[in-house]
Amino acid sequence: MSDATREIEALIDLMARLPGLGPRSARRAVLHLIKKRGALMRPLADAMAGVAAAARECLNCGNIGTSDLCGICTSAKRQNGQLCVVEDVADLWAMERGQVFAGRYHVLGGTLSALDAVGPEELRIPKLRERVAREDITEVILALNATVDGQTTAHYIAEELEATGVAVTSLAQGVPVGGELDYLDDGTISAALKARKTF
Amino acid sequence: MSDATREIEALIDLMARLPGLGPRSARRAVLHLIKKRGALMRPLADAMAGVAAAARECLNCGNIGTSDLCGICTSAKRQNGQLCVVEDVADLWAMERGQVFAGRYHVLGGTLSALDAVGPEELRIPKLRERVAREDITEVILALNATVDGQTTAHYIAEELEATGVAVTSLAQGVPVGGELDYLDDGTISAALKARKTF
Repeated sequence: MSDATREIEALIDLMARLPGLGPRSARRAVLHLIKKRGALMRPLADAMAGVAAAARECLNCGNIGTSDLCGICTSAKRQNGQLCVVEDVADLWAMERGQVFAGRYHVLGGTLSALDAVGPEELRIPKLRERVAREDITEVILALNATVDGQTTAHYIAEELEATGVAVTSLAQGVPVGGELDYLDDGTISAALKARKTF
Repeated sequence: MSDATREIEALIDLMARLPGLGPRSARRAVLHLIKKRGALMRPLADAMAGVAAAARECLNCGNIGTSDLCGICTSAKRQNGQLCVVEDVADLWAMERGQVFAGRYHVLGGTLSALDAVGPEELRIPKLRERVAREDITEVILALNATVDGQTTAHYIAEELEATGVAVTSLAQGVPVGGELDYLDDGTISAALKARKTF
């Protein structure tokens, strides 16, 4: 056991529960924080308490914000017709970094998984159906991860929405920008070849 | 820019300043925290605020604790004669995990470095001289890192303390326990051979 007092030990234990930090890096982070108590630790504690108190899931799309409806759902600048379906808020943030999608989002909160007993009701799929029926949606863009679970979920949603007549599209698969062919897996090469375009 | 509101962005920026976390992993950590606001984020914010308010450097040895004198300096169970000199509190914690040293510590707060203009006065070296003169010290154990700066500092301290007559020792260098020779650098092999012992 280290000499750190019980309070510091407790803080290290909590920090070690963050993704990407283990016991050793949590210790290092806490020492760094203690050395910069004024400049970093107090502001961080305040910011964390503030976000813990304010953060909530958007009742409409599942995005995280600080009010019942998130900034994207309430923004007048976003287009209404397109709905981009993502697994997780992190994926929504990734899409937003792309700065090319101007529509609105729908965060599922995971993927269908028979193994983990995650069915459509556990995800925000009924809500998606309701939004497609209620809002003036012309296109649902499935931006799900290119994993087995992600693609299973994509197929399920596409079937679910078939009757509504809404256009269902999905992100293109192919060579990543800046990617080198030699480092790509066979599946990506094959998908990129099948989806080839006139130059 | 992501859609996260300004508060969440500010928290991500602060988290990204922790060692071991970059912008991407800070985002992931903050999302994780927001999902576990009750179970993790609030306790973490509270623990951080508590430590920020309570933590301070021990006036005697430089260790971090929650009062003016740290637990080791005030403990009656620790032996008085031996003083273990370490660069940093992290090194003190590492020594304590070894559970073999029963004396007390002196944390320098860094190493001498001509490049970074760190002289003896910037470190806790005058205080070390004072402790050796005042306390009943029989041995000063230099547990400094086996880096150039660490060893320079060790030599400086050994010279400084020569006149006091106190025994100055340093940690042994050799093959780490569990270490494989094939993976060791030449310097370690050479040091271990020179310091070989009768089996």
